[in-house]
Amino acid sequence: MNIAILGFGVVGSGVAEVIKNNSDSILKNSNVSLKVTRILDIRDFSGNEYENIITNNFDDILGDDTIDIVVETMGGVKPAFDFVLACLNKGKHVVSSNKELVATKGYELLEAAKKNNVNFLFEASVGGGIPIIRPMSRCLAGNKISEVAGILNGTSNFILTKMIMDGMSFADALKLAQDKGYAEKDPTADVEGLDAMRKICILASLAFGYHVYPDGVYSEGISKITLEDVAFAASYDSVIKLIAMTKKLSDDKALVMVSPRLVKNDSMLSGVNGVFNACLVRGDATGDVLMYGKGAGSLATASAVVGDVIDCASYSEERKFFGWDDKKENYLADYLDCETALYVRATGADKAAIEKAFGSVQYLTRENQGADEIAFVTPVKKEKELRDTLACLNMNVLSIIRTADY
Amino acid sequence: MNIAILGFGVVGSGVAEVIKNNSDSILKNSNVSLKVTRILDIRDFSGNEYENIITNNFDDILGDDTIDIVVETMGGVKPAFDFVLACLNKGKHVVSSNKELVATKGYELLEAAKKNNVNFLFEASVGGGIPIIRPMSRCLAGNKISEVAGILNGTSNFILTKMIMDGMSFADALKLAQDKGYAEKDPTADVEGLDAMRKICILASLAFGYHVYPDGVYSEGISKITLEDVAFAASYDSVIKLIAMTKKLSDDKALVMVSPRLVKNDSMLSGVNGVFNACLVRGDATGDVLMYGKGAGSLATASAVVGDVIDCASYSEERKFFGWDDKKENYLADYLDCETALYVRATGADKAAIEKAFGSVQYLTRENQGADEIAFVTPVKKEKELRDTLACLNMNVLSIIRTADY
Repeated sequence: MNIAILGFGVVGSGVAEVIKNNSDSILKNSNVSLKVTRILDIRDFSGNEYENIITNNFDDILGDDTIDIVVETMGGVKPAFDFVLACLNKGKHVVSSNKELVATKGYELLEAAKKNNVNFLFEASVGGGIPIIRPMSRCLAGNKISEVAGILNGTSNFILTKMIMDGMSFADALKLAQDKGYAEKDPTADVEGLDAMRKICILASLAFGYHVYPDGVYSEGISKITLEDVAFAASYDSVIKLIAMTKKLSDDKALVMVSPRLVKNDSMLSGVNGVFNACLVRGDATGDVLMYGKGAGSLATASAVVGDVIDCASYSEERKFFGWDDKKENYLADYLDCETALYVRATGADKAAIEKAFGSVQYLTRENQGADEIAFVTPVKKEKELRDTLACLNMNVLSIIRTADY
Repeated sequence: MNIAILGFGVVGSGVAEVIKNNSDSILKNSNVSLKVTRILDIRDFSGNEYENIITNNFDDILGDDTIDIVVETMGGVKPAFDFVLACLNKGKHVVSSNKELVATKGYELLEAAKKNNVNFLFEASVGGGIPIIRPMSRCLAGNKISEVAGILNGTSNFILTKMIMDGMSFADALKLAQDKGYAEKDPTADVEGLDAMRKICILASLAFGYHVYPDGVYSEGISKITLEDVAFAASYDSVIKLIAMTKKLSDDKALVMVSPRLVKNDSMLSGVNGVFNACLVRGDATGDVLMYGKGAGSLATASAVVGDVIDCASYSEERKFFGWDDKKENYLADYLDCETALYVRATGADKAAIEKAFGSVQYLTRENQGADEIAFVTPVKKEKELRDTLACLNMNVLSIIRTADY
């Protein structure tokens, strides 16, 4: 089977490498023979081993009838969307690692794939090399999924791990991440939760059947987390993790959001450290299932792309039934209407007033706690109610972090 | 699609329940309509809601041409093997949860499926509801897998968790497991590692392509683990887990074994507690991937069966390329030839002699350590060499446990 790769960057070159290195075992284990015959990139690759098959002209791929499967590893929406749509309309399968594309254009592209009786697959768009999308859509297909929650961004998880385990400040941990190449010069997408948010949009669309567009989703990052918060969380037998989650509230409503949360130490999610990612899926028959591994990286992400390519090659005559409907109006719940407990750190607080307002709370402690500093966890209530109650209290609130029940 | 269930026990009845409860969502998400039309069981089910479709005559199923997919949830080899083989030869897909059947007869049945152009699938035979087999064989198909290691038996993991977290003795924890229904009256298969061993045989066959039969595999259980060992492991920043593992040593040799191991606390496997299971897969592109969840239980296991049934129903005209070759002669390595470090607990030891014999060792400590009691971890060497060295030392060895590098 002839494969074309659009975008010869970190992931695209990883795909070529995996196919080259493992072609024998792929043939033996899956009975498919893969060959990369075309690569699209506008950059100059003179001297590269693939030099002869690299082109900057998309039509060399679109018009090549010997190419059945196209891998899109360009990133971004333009021009990836136009290229992918054209390939699908030409009857070529497309495998993508592009979360922004799938999160914003997934429904349209899945409809185009259906119309042309080909596959549009994107395991690599969420969680790098970790099998998430196929287990959710195939292995767990007998379940009604009620909730999906994950640590889906390696940069922010690396930073939090450094804060938790090594007592590094957020700023120092971010600098270290940048030095190591785990964070961009402008780290906003990673540390403010936008990257994780695109991924949970894809997972929510898959889990609940309606396309969830990123522009409707609340996202809060980790830049306000302090070492004091980390210490108080430890006394609550918890760690702070950036959790991307979606929960089905009814047939007409789902909550989708990204925010830091206090995750209990007996949860499997609490043990996910460094640049590793994990995704927990709650099914009515299977209970909690978790998938863990490298959420990014050239070969890890390429592994997921190649898994999908093999799938297309194996079932080239028969399209996988896979997809979701377009967005449902008023489907996304307001997180303020949803129940949670809140961790609160403050100064100038009056414990009696707090207890009068909330009923009982759980006070937390830390070493070197400020004389005027308190921290507590509220009962579980609608977030709006908790915040209104906090607003009425006469204290200086320094941190508010949601809890989790994973 | 009409489904027959062979064996209406814990898992078989769970399959009927999942199909009944989730038929609408299965139709919506996977575009297949499933109906259980026949159930085989020799017991009396008068008054049961499925009474009218329960038969004790296998021919009622074999001869029914409206049945395309047969679920085998009988357990054991006889008569399950004969029934499954007959179904495959009659052109019916078979989905099984039967680890003993797959571990001892998997190759034969996969060949029969291939010959008859139908599927023989068994996700549920390893790890209950956790997606393991499909991620390994599909999602990770671009990788060369080098190692698979798991906590694959809930009973023994429950016992070890009670010992580690609650300081219960092995005997008390076993009794508690029996009271809770997590362990049989005769718990041998679970606590001596035989159940886990059958599962790792299946995973080794899948990972490396040659059927691994249980009779060639070394298995050591948890009945000799003491609370003293648990305490020393803690000082090595580890927990003791029953690990079923397989590692590719060369094209002609693989190690397959089950034994307790000291697992470091920063490993994801260390956080797998109670009756939960997990399976770690090491691929050359993806690195370590771990799948975690409920390894047993009616609905969890049924979830995996139904996932496979949906797969058969979705691709009823096209057999999945899936299987392995028959056993390879002299394929299984002798664990004594393989490298490991050993944790040793002993009395009457001479530290100078130990250090002379092993070079450097790491000494461990525990609260209330006996005056004459020592524990240490050896360097990594061939196990035979380490045991020969131990045999030459004049001390009373109480425990020997292998380490792990997950």
